[in-house]
Order: sequence, then structure tokens, then C-alpha cells
Amino acid sequence: MIYFNCDYNEGAHPQILQKLLETNSEQTIGYGEDGYCRQAADIIRVLCRCEDAAVHFVVGGTQANLTVIDAALRPYQGALCAVSGHINVHETGSVEATGHKVLGLPHQEGKITAAQVEEAMQRHLSDDSAEHTVQPKLVYISSPTEFGTIYTKSELQALCQVCRRYGLYLFLDGARMSYGLAASGCDVTLPDLAEFCDVFYLGGTKCGALFGEAIVITNPELKRDFRYMIKQKGGMLAKGRLLGIQFLELLKDGMKLYLQLARYADGLADRIRQALTEKGFALVCQNTTNQIFTILPDKAVQTLSEQFVLSLDEKVDGSHRMVRICTSWATKAEDVDRLIGEIQKL
Amino acid sequence: MIYFNCDYNEGAHPQILQKLLETNSEQTIGYGEDGYCRQAADIIRVLCRCEDAAVHFVVGGTQANLTVIDAALRPYQGALCAVSGHINVHETGSVEATGHKVLGLPHQEGKITAAQVEEAMQRHLSDDSAEHTVQPKLVYISSPTEFGTIYTKSELQALCQVCRRYGLYLFLDGARMSYGLAASGCDVTLPDLAEFCDVFYLGGTKCGALFGEAIVITNPELKRDFRYMIKQKGGMLAKGRLLGIQFLELLKDGMKLYLQLARYADGLADRIRQALTEKGFALVCQNTTNQIFTILPDKAVQTLSEQFVLSLDEKVDGSHRMVRICTSWATKAEDVDRLIGEIQKL
Amino acid sequence: MIYFNCDYNEGAHPQILQKLLETNSEQTIGYGEDGYCRQAADIIRVLCRCEDAAVHFVVGGTQANLTVIDAALRPYQGALCAVSGHINVHETGSVEATGHKVLGLPHQEGKITAAQVEEAMQRHLSDDSAEHTVQPKLVYISSPTEFGTIYTKSELQALCQVCRRYGLYLFLDGARMSYGLAASGCDVTLPDLAEFCDVFYLGGTKCGALFGEAIVITNPELKRDFRYMIKQKGGMLAKGRLLGIQFLELLKDGMKLYLQLARYADGLADRIRQALTEKGFALVCQNTTNQIFTILPDKAVQTLSEQFVLSLDEKVDGSHRMVRICTSWATKAEDVDRLIGEIQKL
Amino acid sequence: MIYFNCDYNEGAHPQILQKLLETNSEQTIGYGEDGYCRQAADIIRVLCRCEDAAVHFVVGGTQANLTVIDAALRPYQGALCAVSGHINVHETGSVEATGHKVLGLPHQEGKITAAQVEEAMQRHLSDDSAEHTVQPKLVYISSPTEFGTIYTKSELQALCQVCRRYGLYLFLDGARMSYGLAASGCDVTLPDLAEFCDVFYLGGTKCGALFGEAIVITNPELKRDFRYMIKQKGGMLAKGRLLGIQFLELLKDGMKLYLQLARYADGLADRIRQALTEKGFALVCQNTTNQIFTILPDKAVQTLSEQFVLSLDEKVDGSHRMVRICTSWATKAEDVDRLIGEIQKL
Repeated sequence: MIYFNCDYNEGAHPQILQKLLETNSEQTIGYGEDGYCRQAADIIRVLCRCEDAAVHFVVGGTQANLTVIDAALRPYQGALCAVSGHINVHETGSVEATGHKVLGLPHQEGKITAAQVEEAMQRHLSDDSAEHTVQPKLVYISSPTEFGTIYTKSELQALCQVCRRYGLYLFLDGARMSYGLAASGCDVTLPDLAEFCDVFYLGGTKCGALFGEAIVITNPELKRDFRYMIKQKGGMLAKGRLLGIQFLELLKDGMKLYLQLARYADGLADRIRQALTEKGFALVCQNTTNQIFTILPDKAVQTLSEQFVLSLDEKVDGSHRMVRICTSWATKAEDVDRLIGEIQKL
Repeated sequence: MIYFNCDYNEGAHPQILQKLLETNSEQTIGYGEDGYCRQAADIIRVLCRCEDAAVHFVVGGTQANLTVIDAALRPYQGALCAVSGHINVHETGSVEATGHKVLGLPHQEGKITAAQVEEAMQRHLSDDSAEHTVQPKLVYISSPTEFGTIYTKSELQALCQVCRRYGLYLFLDGARMSYGLAASGCDVTLPDLAEFCDVFYLGGTKCGALFGEAIVITNPELKRDFRYMIKQKGGMLAKGRLLGIQFLELLKDGMKLYLQLARYADGLADRIRQALTEKGFALVCQNTTNQIFTILPDKAVQTLSEQFVLSLDEKVDGSHRMVRICTSWATKAEDVDRLIGEIQKL
Repeated sequence: MIYFNCDYNEGAHPQILQKLLETNSEQTIGYGEDGYCRQAADIIRVLCRCEDAAVHFVVGGTQANLTVIDAALRPYQGALCAVSGHINVHETGSVEATGHKVLGLPHQEGKITAAQVEEAMQRHLSDDSAEHTVQPKLVYISSPTEFGTIYTKSELQALCQVCRRYGLYLFLDGARMSYGLAASGCDVTLPDLAEFCDVFYLGGTKCGALFGEAIVITNPELKRDFRYMIKQKGGMLAKGRLLGIQFLELLKDGMKLYLQLARYADGLADRIRQALTEKGFALVCQNTTNQIFTILPDKAVQTLSEQFVLSLDEKVDGSHRMVRICTSWATKAEDVDRLIGEIQKL
Repeated sequence: MIYFNCDYNEGAHPQILQKLLETNSEQTIGYGEDGYCRQAADIIRVLCRCEDAAVHFVVGGTQANLTVIDAALRPYQGALCAVSGHINVHETGSVEATGHKVLGLPHQEGKITAAQVEEAMQRHLSDDSAEHTVQPKLVYISSPTEFGTIYTKSELQALCQVCRRYGLYLFLDGARMSYGLAASGCDVTLPDLAEFCDVFYLGGTKCGALFGEAIVITNPELKRDFRYMIKQKGGMLAKGRLLGIQFLELLKDGMKLYLQLARYADGLADRIRQALTEKGFALVCQNTTNQIFTILPDKAVQTLSEQFVLSLDEKVDGSHRMVRICTSWATKAEDVDRLIGEIQKL
């Protein structure tokens, strides 16, 4: 079977493993205070053109999300979020487990708009009994989203403006960051994110590393004592350097490896999208990153599932289903050829 | 100004205050273990025809809700609830503050159906990555609902059945219990609630008492160590007898005072509903309890607001607004006459 | 049986009940925003000579403690507290249930010192791995303490100074406030508390009211959005005026009733202390408030328990036990005479 | 500088890295449901002679501790623990952050006894107001302890018996498991742990792996839905197989590598202990695992710190300090020679 169900079926890019091998017997201090973590953080600050940013490495995305959100909010505050957002759907209530409500907003292809945030804040502020309701204080977005779409620069700018107007923190979940940065049509850069967001992270797990996410905090209010938060939530790796080393490899030389791997995966996804479209299968949204969402007849799903593992989402009607197909840095071109061949035969 | 905005603008029914006066200098032990609480609990067990029920008194509704739900759930479990439910909207995220997600379902006049619960459970159970999502374990309903409607016996029975089939707890918030029990067309009794629900409460605060809610637990799984929960959440009144005495007065002689006060308030509400309908104003829902939800032109709202305090809900369009009008045991008939007079003049 | 086990065996002082009766049928808005609450808050601000203080009323002490502490702390911060402190022992882990560790310090007759706080902070700040430990951010004290002792003005001043030096909040639990203010030898006033503490409360439940505590916040950092916190924790009474009315009666005319009731109770306690001392029974501490802690032979305990309900604390050795005797505003002088008579007969 | 401050200064044993390299390009499903995790779990069940045990892999120790404890307890329950226990001191209040109090007991060289647990339970059960206090429900121990000592079989058996008698869960933190199993004088085996404990874990991070702990649950009550807990707390690694592969290497062939590495480290530690003793420096406790706690004059600390990084603990008096020295699977024999040489020269 060939796996197209997600972008974390394999280990890490060989270059990263190689670096872990080379550095294996060095002695360093623990908990992310070693030289590798420092170097990786410095590189990120340079890439973001934000020399004051605080950079922290944690093992995974759920951890990153719950730690950032719990650190940012007072007990009665909540996070505005697309109802399709990862924290609202697929993290087993981890944000609520820290005591905070996720305030769902309808999504458009996984995205929310500045106007929606504006409206939510107006509703809260004009509510006579506002204190009987959760106070929105943070806006959580992901880009690429859970539908593989990406926010444009102007969308992010608008979100940033509404957030600043209402004193909200803007937090961007970048678990698939590289696939967005490398996508055709993406007009957002890391310095843009550093400018527009109060905090965001660069994904490693789904972007070529064994595991790990790099949290970048630009708002001074959110920097204070953040390491206490990481430790308390169980996200502080004893051998923290493992994270530093991986991000160093991915991001050095102007994010060379990071972007190269993503460009490759996005390209493969484009080919699959084209094959689906040519065959007349609807795409759920027009996107350019490594995730493809399409509607397939049950029969087609069954046929493809004989050779390929796809991610089967909800049924659309009695005979169709939404399906997710993912490529990654590790996807083989010949496997994509084979998948396209089978799509054409359907 | 005459207040019609809610059902807790005054103190307690005089008979209750009288009893508090009479018993004031008696010495009893504290924390709800006195004779009055015991007697009140016994009466409730008889009224519910459920001799094994555990009965606990707490000061208010938010406290009752958060204590019951936190006691019932393991950390990764959540509560299914109408999106309009009190815990989802008007308790400042108190359930989330105990670590649990409220899983919103679309409502019909404040109610949810067994079919919706069934569907939510099927979705969860058929989800390959169920453990990445919050596990539904409790169904929260209120009756009367936040729209003044009441669940029928067959609706409750259906909810009970689906809950038992899937191992869910059914929890009914009865903050306005008496207005429901006394409402025309209500076919539900306390023994029905004891049979269908795992836990529910009889409201005092909005039903004639100074304050207080009586929690009735019928499911043995939920009874264990419940007093620890009440104490931890700050709901254990040092002079617990104050709660026992009040419920004793309300519920003795077959809920005589409890029902009489509610019947009176429901009747006044019927008169207002009739006046609104005759004048051509739409009711948001056809209900028979003490809350009236209607759509009024902004002008009418303005006129009425000169003499009456109403509860102004959301705008319906550019020139209309949803308005809540409440009666209670303390509402004066002459004030209702006056309100009706003004409605007719509109 | 005559109850000397605690100071909340009866209802409220008759003058308070009378006021509740008089105001019962008035209509006011809910949730503590009525005129009575405003008046009571104004009086407290005047009594404290602190016109900027925020004043909030909640139903009970556990609620007051957990709400204040959770509002004050970020997730990784904890509260320094005597190991004998109420929050550390007798509130079923309510502070931990909000996510915060209580950091116990050894006590001297229920009290902790500025030097202990200093030492705890030095230890934390000099710890290389401080972020692996809970960060102390608040000092919780009670006065009168759980042993009936009171902090002197210079002790409070010293605590205040060390707290300000290290950026700690000083929080005083005043559940038995009046018994302290009225005690012989007490050199602390409300303006002192307003000056030294960031937040404190005046107890009602144990000091003559039916129930209720008045939280006074002087530190602006702690004032923000406090009503959201009260609502979320279930401490916001729908008929909030019940609290305002009671504190109004207790505190008007220069705390006349509040002090008078406490002076009476403290005086009765002095008589009991004298009787115990004359009879040769050791007092656990030399205090002047309404709680008496003494060591009695088991036989004496048994004899007294035939007529009186005492609070039996831990066994001191094979044949002795620590016993708490409480007086209150409601204690009858003749019952004290009788108790003293029995002590003398032992 | 040569690091002797902890046992996680290097990466992983080369054999483990090699295996990660070999399997790197394989495709597996995520989140710990792959074949490697299954195999590793099977091996652990065989090693424990407990075919029903549930085995889960998480990234680190704090995560393991907080997830197990939160899964085991109801909201008002707490964990008995040596005051020196890792969860009480060095995890930034992570257990409290899940809502539970850690109930400290005095320790003897890092250990607590069955008699202490018995006494704590007797005190709780005989307390008239038990529900005002936290209910002990779990006993947390670590072995090797934070002082490097290990529980004997009879000590564990006694703890097990008292726990079963009182319905407590016994949870053993085995972050340094291998150093205990391999220690001279250790009479405890994995089957013993499976018999005596309700849940325990085998450490990887400090025992030769890059990272990871293997949680073994033998009590059926604790097995239910545990993966939901892991996911919610952020401990579920997307590429879960990384954990399975590492434990497979460590534990295959009868724990060959796991024990070999530990035996080596324990042996080096024995040599250092002997050198210290011969030189007349006191050992804080007589232990046989890879951690050494000794009291050194400040001058000696200063001298050694020129070449070696030691873990400096609290000051013992004006001129002495407690120091921790650690060996690990990665410690070089020649570095130990050098350290011993310097000790002899002091």
C-alpha cells in the first residue's frame, strides 16, 4: 500500500538524521538552552527580520497550541477560531482542558475574516451582560488551513488590524508553514507573519523534521516566563537540542531545505489536482499546497483504496465522499504517477 | 419603572422569609447536614417517587451546572448541548473552566432532539480518529429552555433512550422548573424526570426563593462523593439550612407554594402573549411558561421602555428586535394590566 | 445540646433579617449592580479610606479565595500560604482545581512571617532551574487566622514590604474580620489593610450575616474584569442585592453593628479562656478573638460533650485532644455561664 | 568541560540512532498505532509477564506523570507523594495545572513508606469534615528516587497492600528505571512492578534513548480511553513509531541493551562513590544507581567546577553544599578516571 493519507508517514529528511548522528555524542546542557537551539533561534529571528522575537521549540502542534493559548489568556477569556480549526476539532479539547472556551466562527475554506472578528467583538462589547459570556481575547488561525488554503497578505493584514483595534492577540498555527511559504500564489513571508501576528509557529513535524515546532513570539506581553509554561505543560524536551539541530538544518541558508522540500510536495499535489480536475472530479477548494480535498464517488474511493491509503472524510451524500490526499517531502514521484494513472482509469 | 426583564427582581415569597425569621435563632450544624435540609431532601425524594435519589442544595444555577458536569465527566469528555443552552452562552465559560468542552448542537426553540444526539454519537463512534476529538458523555438540556419552551414527556423519553443506548448521562437544568410543571400543556412530572434523567435540579432562585437550587441525582455513578465536589467548587453554604428551609416551604404539601406561584406567573404571561398576538406581534415561539419572546418594532420597544424594563435581545433586522418579557410569582396583576394597556395602544 | 463548635450555627442578626424583610418587594436589577450593593461598596471604600477600591460581594469564603487567587495568577504561578491556611487544608483543593499550587510554609500559631516569604523568594530566584518549579506570586494570609490569632500592624507592614519588593500580591482572608478588628490588642484598622494588602475581604457569614463576603481590591492590576471571574466561578448571586443589604446593615454608622457583635463574642471568649486557664488547661495560643483552642483530657472532653457541642481537633497524645470552642454574636451569655460552670466542675 | 550534572547530556545510544536511520523511509500510520509500537508493547508485556497490560509511549516524564495522574483522579482527589518527589518539586506544578493537589509526605532518602500512607488514610477517613479536604486516591513514588535510592521488593509489596486496602492507585515513576533494575542489591523485577503497581513507566530519555517513556497500565480501571488523555495533553507524537523503534532496540533480547547501558553507568557511579568515601566525603545516601549525592566543601566544589559540570544543590551550611554527580550510558570511563583523580587530589 502507498500512503497518501497524511504528511507524516515517514521519518525525517536524511540530511536531518545525518546531523543528529554527527552531533550525537556531544555534551550539551538540556531543556533547550544549548547552543544549537540558540543558533536556530537566531536564524529564525533573522528570517523573520525581528531581532526581539522570543523563539521556543516544542515537540508537537497540540502542545504548541495549548501552551500558547493558555499563556495568553486570563481564565475567563477565549479564543476565536474557525469551527474547522484544529484546536476546535482535532485536539481532544486540549484548549478547554486548560480552562478556555474555543469560540467557533463559520469558516470559508478553512479561513475566517477580519469582518467576522469585528462582528464578534461588536457583539461582545455591546452586550449588556458581557461578563456572563466568555471574553474573546485571541484569534487562532492556521495557514495553510485544515483545508490546505492559505491566507493572503491582505487578509492577514486585515486580521491584524482588527485584532490590534480590539486588543486581541493574533496567533497563527503554522504546522504546515513550509507548504504555504512555497506555494504558488503565496504572497506572505516570514517578516509579514512577524509583523502581523503576536505569536505563530513554524512546523517541523509535517515539514521534514522528525518532530518539533518553533514558536515565535513577537508581542512582549506574551514573552514573559514562557519557559515556565512549556515546562508545566510537559513540552520541554530534556534533550532540547534535538529540536534546535533539526530546525538548524531545515532553516539554514535562507530556509533552503525547508522550502525545497515543500516546493517539491506542493508540485506533486498540483499534478494530482490537475488529474482530478481533468477527470471531472470537483475540488473542495482551489488551493496550491500539499493537501488536496476532492469529492469522489464511493466506487472511485473503493478502487483507489486497493492500492492507496487516502484520508476518508465525511460523506457528502448517499454515494459520494470527501477525500483528502496528501503529498510530502517524502512522497515518491513514481507513486504520484501511479496514483494519477489510476485516477485517469476511473 | 416596572421590571419585566427577568424573574429575579424581588426577594423571596413572604412565606419563605417568614420561615427564615421563625427559625433564625435555632442552632444547627452547618454545611447542609442539618434537619431542615434532610427534611427537604426527603420531601423531594417523595415528590420524585425515587427513594434512592441523592439530593443536594447549592446556592445558584451556574454552580449547579458546573459542579454536576465536572463531577460527571472524565477530562477528555464533553457535554452535548443546544448552542442556545445556558452553559454554552451565559455562564462565562464556567464548564470550560473545569476543563470540559461544550459540544454545541443546533436548537429548535431552545430544544435538541434524540435524533441529534444519535447522530452526534454515530459520528463520534464511526470516526477513525475519535480519540483526537472530545468524547460526548453527557447531554445537557434545560426545561423550561432559554426560550421558555418545555420538553414533552415523549421528547424526554426519547432523549433518555438514546442516552442509555450510548452510555450518556442526561442532565436537566431546571432553574425555572416550577414554571414548566405548572404550564398548560405540560405532561411531565417530577417522577418522569427522576426516571428519564440521571441528574436534574429544581430551581429556587427564579421560582420564589431568595436563592438556591436542589440537585437530584438518580444515577448511582454520579452520587459518589458529590459533597466533595460541592465544597471544592465553592457551592457549600456554611449555613446550609437556609437552603433546606426555603425548599421545605416551597415544596411541602405537594409542592403547594411552588406550583401556586408558578401557575400565577404563567397565567400572567398567557395574558401578555394574548395581547401581543391580538396586536399582531409575532411570538418567537409558542410557549406557555413565564417567559415571552416576541419581535417588536424599535419604535414599540422605545415606547414601552418609558414605563417598563424589558430584556432587549438581538436585533432581528434594521427596525425590529427580539424582546423578552418575564413574569414571576412577584409580578403584580395591575402592572400586567398596565403593560397590556400600553401594548394595545401601540 | 448547646453548640460552641463554630460561629455559624444560627441565622443572621435580627436587624439584618428585618432589613431583608423591609426591602423584599422592591424591584432591583440583578447580579450585584443594584443600589444597595453600590451603597455598601461606597461605605466600605469610606471605611477603608480608599476611594479607588473595587468592592465585590460573593456568597462564601471558599468562593472568595478561589476567585481572587485564580484571577491573580498566571497558570504557572502559586500561592505562598501557612500550611495551616484554610486554602491549604479545608477547601477540598479548590485552589488547585483552578490550576494553581499552594506553596505551604511552616506556621507560628497560624501565621507566617515576612522573613519566610523573603526566604522563599530568594530560594526561587537563586534556583538555576526556577522554571521547573512553581513561581510564587501571591501570599495568602488569614486574620484572624485558623488559630484565632491576629496579625499586628507591624507584621502586616513587613509582609507588605517584602511582597512589594518581590512583586507578590498580598491577599488577606478576613472571613472572621470583625472578631479581629474588635479584639483587645488589635492595632490594625481597615485603612491599614487597604494600604498593606492588594486584596482582602470582610467576612459576613461568620460575623452576623446570613452569608456573604465583601472583597476589597486595591491593586489596579487585580481589578480588571473581576466580575467575569465571579460569574465564571459561580459566585455571582442573581439577587445580588441580598449581599448589599446585609453588608449595609452591618457596616453603616461606622461599622456599628459589625463591631458590636464581634466585641460581644470576643468578650464571651475571653471569659471562657480565663476559666480554662484558671482551671489549669493550656491554651494552644494566646489570642483575643472568638475562637479558643485548648488542650483537654479526653475525660473532660467526654464530660463537656454531654451538654455542649465542641469542635474536636487532633489528638495530642494518648489521653489529650485539641479542642476548639467558638463564640459568636449569637452566643447566649447564660450558655457561656453554664459552660464555665462545667469547666470549673471538671 | 566534562558534564556530570545529569544523565541526558548526549543524544541516543548509536544502535538506536542506527535503527531510526534504517527505518526512516518506511511508511507507517501515525500516532503510535504502527507496527513498531505494537511490537515494543508486546515485548514489554512479555517482560512484565502481564499479557493484559496496556502500553503507551509518550515523549517525556512530565507528560507521563501529568497524564497518568489526571486520568486516574476525579476532580477532588489528590496524589500522595514524597515532598521530594519530582511532581511536587520540579514539574512547575503540572499536576496542579490539571486540577489536583499533590499531598506531600516527609521522605526518607526520597522514599515514603506504607506506614505513612496508612496514617494519611486513617487521618482522612476519621476526619468528620473529610469532604472539606482533598481525598487521597493515588500514591506517586519514583524508583530510582530523586536521591538515587531504590525501593526494595518488600517495601513495594507493603505499599501495594496498603494501597489496595484503601482503594488507592500505586503509580511508579520509572524515569531512571534501567539504572534501578541493573543496580547491585536491587531485588525488584518488571513482573514485580506489574504485580504491585497499577501503573508505572520505563524511562527512555535518561536511559539511552533520544527521548520517550513507556507507560504500563495493569489496572483495568486506568486503561479506559487512555489515548484520549495522551492526545489532549499534547503527548501523542504524530510519528509515534519513533518511540516504538527506540524501545524496541532498548528492550529486545531480554532488555539486553537497556540493562547493559545501565549496568555500565551504575558501575562508574560506584567507582565515584568509592573515591568520595575514601576521601572522607559524606554520601547523602547509600545508593547503588547512577546518581551520587554528596556533601562537599565549597572549595572542593570550586576546584572540581573548573573541569567538570556538576549539579549544585542546596547549601548545607555556611561552607558546604550538596552536590549531585551523574553518570550515564554515555559517560566515558576516562572522564570518570579524571574526576576520581581530581577528587583524590582535593
